[in-house]
Amino acid sequence: MMGSLIISTGDELLRGALADTNGAFLAALCDDMGVPCARMAIIGDDESALADLLSDAIGRYVLVLCSGGLGPTTDDVTTRAVSRAFGVPLERNPLARAQVEERFRQRGRAMSPINLKQADLPVGAVVLENPAGTAPAFMMTASGTRAVFLPGPPVELQAVMDRHVSAIFPSGVGPSRVVLRCTGEGESILQERMMPVETAFPGVRVSYRASFPEVSITLSSADPVPLWQCREKAISAIGESLFSTDGCSLAERMIGLLTERRLTVATAESCTGGLISHLLTLVPGASACVRGAVVAYDNAVKTSALGVPEEVLRTKGAVSEETVCAMAQGVCQSLLADIAIATSGIAGPTGGSADKPAGTVHIAVVHPLGILHRKFLFNGINRTRVIAASAAAALKMTLDLLENR
Amino acid sequence: MMGSLIISTGDELLRGALADTNGAFLAALCDDMGVPCARMAIIGDDESALADLLSDAIGRYVLVLCSGGLGPTTDDVTTRAVSRAFGVPLERNPLARAQVEERFRQRGRAMSPINLKQADLPVGAVVLENPAGTAPAFMMTASGTRAVFLPGPPVELQAVMDRHVSAIFPSGVGPSRVVLRCTGEGESILQERMMPVETAFPGVRVSYRASFPEVSITLSSADPVPLWQCREKAISAIGESLFSTDGCSLAERMIGLLTERRLTVATAESCTGGLISHLLTLVPGASACVRGAVVAYDNAVKTSALGVPEEVLRTKGAVSEETVCAMAQGVCQSLLADIAIATSGIAGPTGGSADKPAGTVHIAVVHPLGILHRKFLFNGINRTRVIAASAAAALKMTLDLLENR
Repeated sequence: MMGSLIISTGDELLRGALADTNGAFLAALCDDMGVPCARMAIIGDDESALADLLSDAIGRYVLVLCSGGLGPTTDDVTTRAVSRAFGVPLERNPLARAQVEERFRQRGRAMSPINLKQADLPVGAVVLENPAGTAPAFMMTASGTRAVFLPGPPVELQAVMDRHVSAIFPSGVGPSRVVLRCTGEGESILQERMMPVETAFPGVRVSYRASFPEVSITLSSADPVPLWQCREKAISAIGESLFSTDGCSLAERMIGLLTERRLTVATAESCTGGLISHLLTLVPGASACVRGAVVAYDNAVKTSALGVPEEVLRTKGAVSEETVCAMAQGVCQSLLADIAIATSGIAGPTGGSADKPAGTVHIAVVHPLGILHRKFLFNGINRTRVIAASAAAALKMTLDLLENR
Repeated sequence: MMGSLIISTGDELLRGALADTNGAFLAALCDDMGVPCARMAIIGDDESALADLLSDAIGRYVLVLCSGGLGPTTDDVTTRAVSRAFGVPLERNPLARAQVEERFRQRGRAMSPINLKQADLPVGAVVLENPAGTAPAFMMTASGTRAVFLPGPPVELQAVMDRHVSAIFPSGVGPSRVVLRCTGEGESILQERMMPVETAFPGVRVSYRASFPEVSITLSSADPVPLWQCREKAISAIGESLFSTDGCSLAERMIGLLTERRLTVATAESCTGGLISHLLTLVPGASACVRGAVVAYDNAVKTSALGVPEEVLRTKGAVSEETVCAMAQGVCQSLLADIAIATSGIAGPTGGSADKPAGTVHIAVVHPLGILHRKFLFNGINRTRVIAASAAAALKMTLDLLENR
C-alpha cells in the first residue's frame, strides 16, 4: 500500500481563487509523521468525483486526508460521498450532535435545524471534535485504509489535526521535532553545512523550508536521544545565521529580549522605509520597548530630524558608514532609546552606480557600549527582497549584539 | 469532454515544503479564458505516475496544463512521461536547442552537455519559447486534448503563459478583462451590491478575490461592448470602496498621483508602526515624493518629535481626534511635506477599554487646504489585520482627497 493521499475539495480552489495551503500543511505533517504523501488531488464540490476518488483509494493508501465540504449548506457533499464510497448509510451521530449544539451555545448563537445536518455522519464514523468550529471532523476505516474528513477553513483544520494527531496517524505517536530558524544564508549553503550532520545522524530526518529572507531547518526523529545530539551538532554546523531554536521570529525574539532586560529601541530607516519598525510593532506587547522610528527617506530629513551633518551627506553620500552611524546616533538621542538601529542603502531598481550598486546597504546599531556598523551587498534580487533582506539583517545584527555573539 | 486538468509535479510539493501556487495561477487563468478547471493533481517527480495521469487525460479533457520536471537533472522526468503517454519517441528539437543555447549565451554562462537534454522533446512537440529561463515549454495534441508542459519556477511559468496565452487556449482569443480593486468593504457586501449588475449583464463573468484588506472584482467577456457597459455600472454600484480600475495597488496609485502633481508626503504613525511608510517606499520611484515618517509609538515621542501638546495627550488620550490631528500637523511641519498622514489606535489584543475597544483607530490627513479626520472601528479581527486595515484606510482617505472624492 502507498503512503497518504491528500484530497482538497472546493469550487473556489478550482477557480484559482486561492492556493491550496491546507494540502501543503497536511503534506508536511504526513512527512513528519512518517506517512509521506504519494499524491494530492483537488476537486470541486462534487459528490460523484469525491466518491470515485475515495473508492479508488480504499485499500491502496494507508491514509487519506480529505478537507472541505463538511458545512451545513447544499454544496457540502462530503458525508454523502463517503457514504457511497464506504457503502454505509448516514445516521444522526449523537456525539457529533452534542458537539454542534455545544458550539452554538458557546457562541451564544441560535442554531437552525439545517445545522444539524452536520451531525449526520456515515455509520461507523469515529467523531473527532473540532475545537474551532461547528463542523465535526470524522474518521472511517476500511480495507486497511484510514480516511479522515476535515473542515476546510485552515484554522479549524489545523485545530482538529493538533488535537487528534495521535489518533489519526497509524503509528500512534509522531517523532519529536526541533525547528532551527536562520537568516543571512541561502538554503543551498545551509544544506552544504548540514551535510556532515545528516550523514552522522541517519535516523534523524532533516528538511529545509525557504521563506525569503529566512530558511527553517526541521530535525525530526522518533528517538529523542539522537535528535538532541543532532540538534547540538546542527547548531554548531549552521553557525551564526541561526537565530531561533524555539520557533520565534526575529522580531519576536528581539522584543522578548528587550522586554526581559528593560531596554528600549528606536529605528532610523532610509532604504527599509519603516519595515523594521513595522515588524517590531507587529509583535503583541511591542509598546513596552519600542519608542518609535524616524523614516528619513529624503536627505533633508536625515539632517533636520536626525542631525546628520550636511557635510557628511555631501562628502560621503547618504549611503555610507558615516551617514548611517550618524542616523543611529541621532535617533537614539532624539527618541531617548537605549538601542537604535539605522539603515541606508539602495533598494533599486534605479539609483545604483559603479561603486555603490543597487543592493548596497549600510546598517548601524547604537548601544550603551558603542556603535556597530556593517555593509551588505544584496545583489541579484529585486527591490522588495532587498528591503526585506535589509530589515532581517538589521534585526539579526541587533540580536547578536544583545546576545554577545 | 471536460474543461481543463492541471497537473503540478515535484517531490517538494508532496513534502508540503510549499503550497502549489502555480496550480492556483493556472486555474484562475483557465477560468478567465473560459476553460474552467475540472480537477487538479499533484504528484512527485515520478515518470510512471505522470505517464498514467496523462494517458487517462487524453480524450477526456480539452486542455491539460502540466508544470515542473523540465530541467536538465535526472529527477526531471516530464519529457519521458509525455513520450510514453503519447506513444512517440524523444528527439533533439532544433528550435528548442537554439533557445537553450541562446539563453546561456545571454547569461554569459558555460553550457554543459547535460543542459542539451532540455532540447530532447517528444516528436510532434510545438515549442513555446521560455523568456525567463533555459527550459523550453512545449505543447502536444492528441484525441482532441491539448497538453501543455510548463517550467516549474513560477516566474518562468507565468512568463511562458503570458507570451503564449493565445496559442495555448483552444478558443484562440481570450475574453477581455477589467480588474476593479476595492478596500474598506468585505467580499459579501460587494457581492450584494454587484448583484443587479451581474443580473443585467449575463454575458459578463464576474469573479471575486479577497486578499485582506482588499477585494478584487474581475469582469470578463469575449465581447468588449457589454464588458465596457458592465464596467460603468459596476463602478457606480461598488461606490467609494473602489480605488483602482487599472490593477494598481493603493500605494502605487498614490505615488503615481503625488509624482504627477509634484507633491510630497510624510507619515506620523502610531498603531500602524511604520507600515504605511513601508507600503509607500516599496513602490519604485517613491523617493520622488516620500519625505519620510515618524513612528511615534511611545507617547513621549508624540510630544518630542511631533509636538503633540502633553495636555492633549493627558486630557484626550493618545487615541483621539485631537492627538492624531496634532501628529499629522507636527510631521507635516517638521518633515516639510505637502501632505501628511497620521494614525493612532489600539491594534490589540490588549490595551482596549469599554469606550475605546481594541480596533479603535483615528486617522488624520493634513493637506494644503486643511485637515481631514475619521474614526474607524476594526472589530473582530486580530492585531496583524487591524494594522493592515488601518494602513489601507489611511491610504484610501488620502487618495480620495487627492481625487476630490
